[in-house]
Amino acid sequence: MAIVRQTLVYDGPGGPFEGVITWEDEVETQRPGVLVCPNILGQKEADNQKAEDLAKLGYVALACDVFGQGRRKTRESSNVSEYMDELDADRGLLRDRLAASLAALRGFASVDPARVAAIGFCFGGKCVLDIARAGLPILGGVSFHGVYDRPDYANVDPITAKLLICHGWEDPLCPPDTMVALGQELTAGKADWQIHAYGHAGHAFTDTSVPAGRTPGFGYDENADRRSWKAMSDFLAELFL
Amino acid sequence: MAIVRQTLVYDGPGGPFEGVITWEDEVETQRPGVLVCPNILGQKEADNQKAEDLAKLGYVALACDVFGQGRRKTRESSNVSEYMDELDADRGLLRDRLAASLAALRGFASVDPARVAAIGFCFGGKCVLDIARAGLPILGGVSFHGVYDRPDYANVDPITAKLLICHGWEDPLCPPDTMVALGQELTAGKADWQIHAYGHAGHAFTDTSVPAGRTPGFGYDENADRRSWKAMSDFLAELFL
Repeated sequence: MAIVRQTLVYDGPGGPFEGVITWEDEVETQRPGVLVCPNILGQKEADNQKAEDLAKLGYVALACDVFGQGRRKTRESSNVSEYMDELDADRGLLRDRLAASLAALRGFASVDPARVAAIGFCFGGKCVLDIARAGLPILGGVSFHGVYDRPDYANVDPITAKLLICHGWEDPLCPPDTMVALGQELTAGKADWQIHAYGHAGHAFTDTSVPAGRTPGFGYDENADRRSWKAMSDFLAELFL
Repeated sequence: MAIVRQTLVYDGPGGPFEGVITWEDEVETQRPGVLVCPNILGQKEADNQKAEDLAKLGYVALACDVFGQGRRKTRESSNVSEYMDELDADRGLLRDRLAASLAALRGFASVDPARVAAIGFCFGGKCVLDIARAGLPILGGVSFHGVYDRPDYANVDPITAKLLICHGWEDPLCPPDTMVALGQELTAGKADWQIHAYGHAGHAFTDTSVPAGRTPGFGYDENADRRSWKAMSDFLAELFL
């Protein structure tokens, strides 16, 4: 088994966009596709690696781009939230760029366009929720330490995407009342949903580049990382069986 | 592979107690033990079947009794909560009966007494939490649609048992604020904990004898039943590896 990577440049509003798509090269039939939605920094090697981990599970995965080709940040950047802020201020544009990213994935030859899911981290978790809220064509989505504020457009009704929300209990961006509000929102939307809350875990609990303890409520948590990935694997297996 | 059952009568405060212990009979070494804590009705065939399902996973499982030999209820009983109410009014006695049940399991020849967990349903979920709160010798526990009110004795500090709480979002016995309070309690107790909340699921979501829709907020839910059992299996595997 060998994992192949390919840079994928695709169009969309404000594009072009540049992502990395990856798959196991012995695949000869169409396989389920998984969109990987990056965090505040945009598409980067950490997302490509998550995509490769999904390829090892048998999926074709696209670490997508919603900021635009060449627009990336690092933890050391000035104004690190600049590109994210632009999209937080225009959730309709974010939705349309996510739709373009999904179209790129679904149009890839080895992807079964009827069997697509999305996962995302931090801001990317919000992207997953917005894909579901907007009724874009995914069967299911997984948010890892996502952010739960609603967009300014109305949710589809019902929300047909199945959702797994992996939540760090100590995440200061999403205190328990926001988690409860999300549960209420998804219940009202008739979505098939689960929230897995992990005690002691903070924001960015899957992110090995964020050391635990440097900033209270932020940081990598080995237990929550391992458990949430296992929960995602089970969720995708259930979705695509 | 054959699953063996044996009635186990054991002593304890207010006893004797009568449970059913079950295991796979090709086991020749000591195996992890799992205590199964029944719901409001007391030990019954449904608990024995859950214990058998655990035996199929490689554990020795005891469907235990905290009401006392011969003291059982059915859904048709008058005063169905009578025996549960007695123990809800004396959580110290409940703790001591749980300790006796654990001792019976840990003393069974094929059980490794250092590797024991507990699971429980409804009132039995409360039992699991109380075992952890009291510092009784389990490595981990799983509550299915348990009840979260605290006992009148102080929790051990830290709570060393790892905990998985499988929670029905629509459970009227445990609305979201009680779930949040449980998360706060377990965080304060330094426990390694997870709460998995299942949208649309009510109290008794694992219980096929409680039809969905008869009473709002109560009833079997196939998705939550299947997903919580899988989460439990993963949790026990992690615990005993």
